[in-house]
Amino acid sequence: MSEAVADLGVLGMGTMGANLALNFADQGGFTVALFNRTVEKARRVPADNPELASRLAPADTLQAFVASLKAPRVVVVMVNAGAPVDEQIEHLVPLLSPGDILIDAGNADFNDTVRRDAALKDSGILFVGMGVSGGELGARHGPSIMVGGDEAVWQRLKPLLEPIAAKYEGSPCVAWLGPDGAGHFVKTIHNGIEYADMQMIAEIYGIMRDALTMTAAEMAPVFSRWNEGGLSSYLIEIAAVTLKEVDPETNQAMVDVILDEAGQKGTGRWAVIEAQKLGIGATTLEAAVSARGVSSRRNERLAAARIYGGVSTEPSGFAAGEVGLSELEAALETAKIIAYAQGYATMAEASRAFSWNLPLGEIARIWRAGCIIRSVFLDDITKAYETGETVVNLLQAPSFTSRVAAGEGALRGVVAKAALAGVPVPALSAALAYFDDYRRARGTANLIQAQRDLFGAHTFRRLDKEGTFHHHWPAV
Amino acid sequence: MSEAVADLGVLGMGTMGANLALNFADQGGFTVALFNRTVEKARRVPADNPELASRLAPADTLQAFVASLKAPRVVVVMVNAGAPVDEQIEHLVPLLSPGDILIDAGNADFNDTVRRDAALKDSGILFVGMGVSGGELGARHGPSIMVGGDEAVWQRLKPLLEPIAAKYEGSPCVAWLGPDGAGHFVKTIHNGIEYADMQMIAEIYGIMRDALTMTAAEMAPVFSRWNEGGLSSYLIEIAAVTLKEVDPETNQAMVDVILDEAGQKGTGRWAVIEAQKLGIGATTLEAAVSARGVSSRRNERLAAARIYGGVSTEPSGFAAGEVGLSELEAALETAKIIAYAQGYATMAEASRAFSWNLPLGEIARIWRAGCIIRSVFLDDITKAYETGETVVNLLQAPSFTSRVAAGEGALRGVVAKAALAGVPVPALSAALAYFDDYRRARGTANLIQAQRDLFGAHTFRRLDKEGTFHHHWPAV
Repeated sequence: MSEAVADLGVLGMGTMGANLALNFADQGGFTVALFNRTVEKARRVPADNPELASRLAPADTLQAFVASLKAPRVVVVMVNAGAPVDEQIEHLVPLLSPGDILIDAGNADFNDTVRRDAALKDSGILFVGMGVSGGELGARHGPSIMVGGDEAVWQRLKPLLEPIAAKYEGSPCVAWLGPDGAGHFVKTIHNGIEYADMQMIAEIYGIMRDALTMTAAEMAPVFSRWNEGGLSSYLIEIAAVTLKEVDPETNQAMVDVILDEAGQKGTGRWAVIEAQKLGIGATTLEAAVSARGVSSRRNERLAAARIYGGVSTEPSGFAAGEVGLSELEAALETAKIIAYAQGYATMAEASRAFSWNLPLGEIARIWRAGCIIRSVFLDDITKAYETGETVVNLLQAPSFTSRVAAGEGALRGVVAKAALAGVPVPALSAALAYFDDYRRARGTANLIQAQRDLFGAHTFRRLDKEGTFHHHWPAV
Repeated sequence: MSEAVADLGVLGMGTMGANLALNFADQGGFTVALFNRTVEKARRVPADNPELASRLAPADTLQAFVASLKAPRVVVVMVNAGAPVDEQIEHLVPLLSPGDILIDAGNADFNDTVRRDAALKDSGILFVGMGVSGGELGARHGPSIMVGGDEAVWQRLKPLLEPIAAKYEGSPCVAWLGPDGAGHFVKTIHNGIEYADMQMIAEIYGIMRDALTMTAAEMAPVFSRWNEGGLSSYLIEIAAVTLKEVDPETNQAMVDVILDEAGQKGTGRWAVIEAQKLGIGATTLEAAVSARGVSSRRNERLAAARIYGGVSTEPSGFAAGEVGLSELEAALETAKIIAYAQGYATMAEASRAFSWNLPLGEIARIWRAGCIIRSVFLDDITKAYETGETVVNLLQAPSFTSRVAAGEGALRGVVAKAALAGVPVPALSAALAYFDDYRRARGTANLIQAQRDLFGAHTFRRLDKEGTFHHHWPAV
């Protein structure tokens, strides 16, 4: 029972943990020890997967679990973020030895990962914060894996992780991204971008539904068609799938019976909080996270709708023909580039602030498959970074500037018409406003600085000479 | 020297601390002990203000400072936020006695205030986190004061604070708002709203400058005129003042020689981070904070402007006559109501989450004078809460719904035309998008829920029956 036979162990047999263990056994061919507080849950994994049972070794106690691992050991913890992770680490540490690798593969707040990494330094146990994207199916068949920790540890993990990762044209979607919290930070930004992607798709859907009065069945083929072009991506693909689906109970479109309150597990929120802390305006991501908050206050929305009325269908400029579907497509693609530019700007700033030296091109490379935001577009980003030139911001990368220049007119048209029609486009309009602000040589913060200097003597700089100045403004 | 003569002490003789001390001595008539690490700085305060010198008692050591205070003592700490506050508390605690009041009057992160309050509980020293708004001039002549802590402590502080607070029609702008971090939290939201107010004014200024090609001198009287109407406020007043001001060196308008990079001291950022943590989309505040971030990356902006060109002046719809100044005024007023609604929604949620029972009407009441966002509008908010009816959201308060309904058309027109012209209006468009999202009975989060259920089995609820459901979507 306590013979050291397993190549690694997975602790936590929720769907994600169980699927990851199955993936290690199946695609990796590894022998995997399993543990779960409710022992029965670990036993069920080989029982439910008899073809892999010979490589799955459930343990009844944490001691037996650790004893069954070949040394130096590798333990993957996959439990809920927060206190449960600290609890598992606390239980594991006395059982592990220097040189053993302890991986947190859940969605951690990267600040926790930095703290845990520091706390374990003296023990000699090697801590790895690892972001895993792709949902249940990704975990089982090939996720995108973002590894943080010591580079030397990565060399040991590589042979374990490359076989189970998603492949994009044969290249495994896993990479070491930097020390301590780097992997979880990048996963957090991934999720923030995912929120933005989903929100922008939902806004376009809202225009189709409320301004163009299209049915879900009519929209599905449009998204399918878009999935052949520049927007080609998993999220566009499943938008088509979900829109096409009919509810067997009511015979209505599935989306038409689903309540319009979006849940969230907090990672999108982490992304925008970190962006704010870094002084980066990831406004498109913020708009997306905030929109989920508004959605969840349905009773307030219903009351407000009674007061103000709904979407105007009259002088909106969305009349048939005036806004074509191709304009919506171009607007979505352009806003998507801007949203990703914000996500990448956040990672670039984090890399600078935390001295991580994040490989931004590599990040796009490992997001091309396995994860929720996988897309052809990420291959374009990968190529933009592969040119070797410094990419200050995606909006300045030559491969994107022409696309943005070609699409900005469509984005303007859609945002303007949505504003007039009363169809909310918080993320699309945030993207456009950011773009216009970002490409404006002379901004308006000079007025803000004048006011701040007047009321708080905060001083200002001048256009015509160096230095810091305070003006004696008239008394108010 | 160590005779206990002072009614209270102020520690930290920066501009804010010195001015607050002068205010206590002047309007309060109190005897005020002064201390500063650099002793000379404390001595200079009575020297520079001979008419108040008899009531200003600078101390050479912290021991002498504390010894000069009448018991039970009141110490006001006014130093930079963060570590300096903890340092001063650490030095003071051994010198103070149970029943003494220790006030942090700086801009604290309310989470720090909660922590400090808890840490001092056992000592019997009464900790107060107190927000003070109004800048230098406010501190000297009458700030708006937001008090957190025990209500019993407030009863002791009231006679000290009411004389020095700003007055609105005779009513002092100071109130006890709730336990521990309540005062600093409200001050943080105040600052977030201040960022939004300033950003929206700057956006309207940008439209005037770049689309209507008005000069600063032409704009100044417009803002002066607006200051007589619904927008009447300190920030509109000083917008007019700063726009009118001419640089004596170059004879240009002052605003035209000031660099367009806005500084920030972090409190606006705190506001939007807390809003996100609470699940409230304070998107207008977020857009304002983020816009300062974009402004500070001027070199990137200059490079992007070279790539994409600047504001289009052609088919923008801003041609003379088509967008009147009155439309800009109505748009700004409407967006302002929405921004305040977001700030108030954040406070309402904090009140619920932290069991503070924040007096929202009272908060508007004490913001009517003394602070940077003081305005006639805050009197309207005060009245909305004074009706006694529950205000779910300002956008549902009867006194505002008609104003929003009357102004939303103008806001739509301005946002739409700005989108077409390429003039960035991040805060104005965030406000409009929030409004449209908030008053939409049927949102688009149903599509998001369908996608989440497909890729992560996150489940969804239905419109037609209670419960939580998972659908077996086609394989993708």
